[in-house]
Amino acid sequence: MCNTCGCHSPSSPLLVEVNQSLLAANDKAAHINKHRIEAMGAVAINMMSSPGSGKTTLLEQTIDRLNGKLRIGVIEGDIETERDADRIRAKGVPVVQLTTGGACHLDAPLVGKGLDALEAQLDGKGLDLVVIENVGNLVCPATFALGEHQRVALLSVPEGPDKPAKYPSLFISSQIFLITKTDLLPYFDFDIAQCSAEALNLNPALRVMPLSAVSGKGLNAWLNFLKEITGKE
Amino acid sequence: MCNTCGCHSPSSPLLVEVNQSLLAANDKAAHINKHRIEAMGAVAINMMSSPGSGKTTLLEQTIDRLNGKLRIGVIEGDIETERDADRIRAKGVPVVQLTTGGACHLDAPLVGKGLDALEAQLDGKGLDLVVIENVGNLVCPATFALGEHQRVALLSVPEGPDKPAKYPSLFISSQIFLITKTDLLPYFDFDIAQCSAEALNLNPALRVMPLSAVSGKGLNAWLNFLKEITGKE
Repeated sequence: MCNTCGCHSPSSPLLVEVNQSLLAANDKAAHINKHRIEAMGAVAINMMSSPGSGKTTLLEQTIDRLNGKLRIGVIEGDIETERDADRIRAKGVPVVQLTTGGACHLDAPLVGKGLDALEAQLDGKGLDLVVIENVGNLVCPATFALGEHQRVALLSVPEGPDKPAKYPSLFISSQIFLITKTDLLPYFDFDIAQCSAEALNLNPALRVMPLSAVSGKGLNAWLNFLKEITGKE
Repeated sequence: MCNTCGCHSPSSPLLVEVNQSLLAANDKAAHINKHRIEAMGAVAINMMSSPGSGKTTLLEQTIDRLNGKLRIGVIEGDIETERDADRIRAKGVPVVQLTTGGACHLDAPLVGKGLDALEAQLDGKGLDLVVIENVGNLVCPATFALGEHQRVALLSVPEGPDKPAKYPSLFISSQIFLITKTDLLPYFDFDIAQCSAEALNLNPALRVMPLSAVSGKGLNAWLNFLKEITGKE
């Protein structure tokens, strides 16, 4: 229930040293995870966004469309429930559900346990792509490296185009920015060019891809990116 | 940019004692805030949700519709930018922008500074209602009492109906649950009855109010609630 969240509190310089040691331990575990993922033959992406931006739906579509082309394994992060893993399991790919029991982000040691459980489901052939779907939160997950090769920030049209400037850390630390649910553009005052420009102002190296998992528009750029990073072009 | 977030980490029991002392200090500051708000003649609400669930838009509509009936002061919480305060200032009510500089929630000491700045804008007549709009985050804000009398959890239709079960702490600790952006129901697979039932399963005392700040539907129940808690029925 997040009753010991104890996030770096805005009014308190407290905890800085303790947090630095926690982050150093996390980075070390992330480094080990990355090596384990590479030993499976895979690269990993860390998908981060607010709740409800469409991470799981996009992932369902991605698995359907890449079926047979990439061997995909999924690690689902949530505070509570197995719902997302159930949805992905229905697609027939190896999946592990991690529940944080209140904490607002995944961390590398927990993802290490996820890799143990994922490896136990493999048939010896390894994987091309490990997708880590983080807890829905536009802030805290950005602080914790998990062992990923690429960070993917998602923002859906209904959330509004002003979010990169208001929640900058995720957009600064990511390589890919997916603007999702673009099929809803007719119903919202959302200017893709303006939103992209604000995100690029924070991070000029960001690759921005607007897409809709419902209409399919823009999905090819995303799928091509996944083929590119896994060397399956 | 949240690089010292150090949230209660899922894999680590670390920090528990330190966090307890931080939360105890926060609760003490919240208690003082509450007395200060009551000394202004006001009650306070703490509005919490993910980014983009429509907190600021609802607040704009609320101020328009209660204009002259309730004296309202607003404390806006964001990680970065003055945008939300600019929108509320345009409505002609006293407003203070708090930026947390990376932290993912408001805490009571920071809100105490907000009350200082709010008091400096008052004309000696006091206020009926202090609205605190928290940082957009469905997890961490729920842990930090700010001095509010009522907690209001918001979830918008585009975010999906499964969120109370997946992010329970906010719904357990709130008195009011606003399901926002109901004008978008025709475009989403969102069952209000099912979502309400899941939230009530977590917290049977929750008052659930579906509404749309765009169409105006359901707003009266919300406005009546505000009049009720301020004794201006």
